[in-house]
Amino acid sequence: MSDGRIVVLSGGVGGAKLALGAYEVLPADTLSVIVNIADDFVHLGLSVSPDLDTLLYTLAGLNNEEQGWGRRDETWTFMKALRSLGGADWFQLGDGDLALHVERTERLKKGETLTAITKHVAKSWGIGADILPVSDDLIRTIVETDQGTLSFQEYFVGQRCQPVLRELRYDGAAEAKLSAAVENALLDKNNRAIIIAPSNPYLSIDPILAVPGIRECVRQSNAPVVAVSPIVGAAAIKGPLAKIMAELDKEVTPATIAAHYGALLDGFVLDRTDKHLKGEIAIPTLSTNTIMSTLDDKKALAQDVIRFADSLGALSVPGAVA
Amino acid sequence: MSDGRIVVLSGGVGGAKLALGAYEVLPADTLSVIVNIADDFVHLGLSVSPDLDTLLYTLAGLNNEEQGWGRRDETWTFMKALRSLGGADWFQLGDGDLALHVERTERLKKGETLTAITKHVAKSWGIGADILPVSDDLIRTIVETDQGTLSFQEYFVGQRCQPVLRELRYDGAAEAKLSAAVENALLDKNNRAIIIAPSNPYLSIDPILAVPGIRECVRQSNAPVVAVSPIVGAAAIKGPLAKIMAELDKEVTPATIAAHYGALLDGFVLDRTDKHLKGEIAIPTLSTNTIMSTLDDKKALAQDVIRFADSLGALSVPGAVA
Repeated sequence: MSDGRIVVLSGGVGGAKLALGAYEVLPADTLSVIVNIADDFVHLGLSVSPDLDTLLYTLAGLNNEEQGWGRRDETWTFMKALRSLGGADWFQLGDGDLALHVERTERLKKGETLTAITKHVAKSWGIGADILPVSDDLIRTIVETDQGTLSFQEYFVGQRCQPVLRELRYDGAAEAKLSAAVENALLDKNNRAIIIAPSNPYLSIDPILAVPGIRECVRQSNAPVVAVSPIVGAAAIKGPLAKIMAELDKEVTPATIAAHYGALLDGFVLDRTDKHLKGEIAIPTLSTNTIMSTLDDKKALAQDVIRFADSLGALSVPGAVA
Repeated sequence: MSDGRIVVLSGGVGGAKLALGAYEVLPADTLSVIVNIADDFVHLGLSVSPDLDTLLYTLAGLNNEEQGWGRRDETWTFMKALRSLGGADWFQLGDGDLALHVERTERLKKGETLTAITKHVAKSWGIGADILPVSDDLIRTIVETDQGTLSFQEYFVGQRCQPVLRELRYDGAAEAKLSAAVENALLDKNNRAIIIAPSNPYLSIDPILAVPGIRECVRQSNAPVVAVSPIVGAAAIKGPLAKIMAELDKEVTPATIAAHYGALLDGFVLDRTDKHLKGEIAIPTLSTNTIMSTLDDKKALAQDVIRFADSLGALSVPGAVA
């Protein structure tokens, strides 16, 4: 059991932190991360995949920790020159970051899949984990707001999430095909746990779960499914989650997150400061430190979540037989 | 006469040096540079125009003088990251340089002409001269060598001009349309001189002159036409010209260059070290310093060439009347 595979469902930064923790505590080649692609977009003719990039940079140790996104030791000569040409400068592209987008765009044009390209990048950078886009088809988050319909990046970067969100759509999700690699990862008999990272459920995890067949794969898996709350106290750890929950008329509490994933989950992890809320959650719940400031925090949380899942797995086996 | 327009036909580095000299000594907005586009190519999905770029960087004061190509204060983070991904690294793209290619590619995709894009860049960088691609259509130099057919950049950068050249073709030139801006520049009644820069005749000037109609425009112009020799002594000032001339069975001497342009020229400029060769050239010939090491050299040569052209213009008026 202890060298089974861990599958993490992840958005960008928060998910990458937990994935890094898991990567550090697990044996090599026992981690698969299924990643949201609904934030992906074409900018200046280049295919940008923000969540995949964050995972790749983070697991390769190339991420810029202070900045929270992009590459470490980055330079910005491109943006400066682009600005001098009156080019579109609302989305920051570092010089090193550009290489990933240029190479990906070129390979997509040659007919390679996003899955194959991501695998190539991970291999090039010596990452001993599978980073898997949920699909090789296009999925695009569309945000209906009080200021009209916006693409995800217009909403998220262009307008810094300021418009009031009314509704989210994941264009293309219903027609998207789950990648074979994702299906294989979820249905692997050797799976130890499936972890939903503390990513934004509405912006990052739902567009993954919107791909036909994935919920069935998760349900079919023998491994326990555990989600980590992205809400601590009545606030989001990071990003616009609390604002979005309020705008969608949802109570900003971990219980809302647990209820959101509902029957998909076997267990739920909330922050130790929310220990008193355990009673509000109908499934087995672990309280621990979920704030991942240091690498040790990330490793400790991953370890806690995996052990918790192991305990649920041990419990669920007789249940499944009964 | 003295504030008429100077039109320069130019390839990359050598032409840009003379163009810069002319730009410095002329009143604002009296210089047009017609530029070779047959070295242009698509690399990593990006439209690169090496000769236009060199002109733009040089006249904007952004060129890297020590390196001889590219931008000053350039960084190379992109290439380093690209290499880490196993990307195509045989052609060097600086981080700042990339902005020009990305912006141009994006604008071409939106349907802007290369002429309009180049004008936008020149304006963005405060260049008070017209930098004009000879055509908005594609022209591509193809090099037949002892090692087979090569694209220009494969030959020039990829193989460093080492294969033996048998023949040159300018694919697309016969079907290319002279841009209206180039036609207007050449036929401007106010033209003072048309100068063929000391660029490589076979690789840089011939693909300009191969566009239907341009020779007629040059001939129709009232302005004297003067070429500056890229051969000094029995060597090229720069690049593979002498090697190419030998491979094409041509004598490596300024007289070969003068004969190559033939009836197109009213005058020829050779280096002072080749003064003794004046007798071999059938048209009026000026000898002066043509080695442009410093900015003063560039200005002095431009001044010399323009004065020489002025003297030919004064001579040619009665000739034209007779």
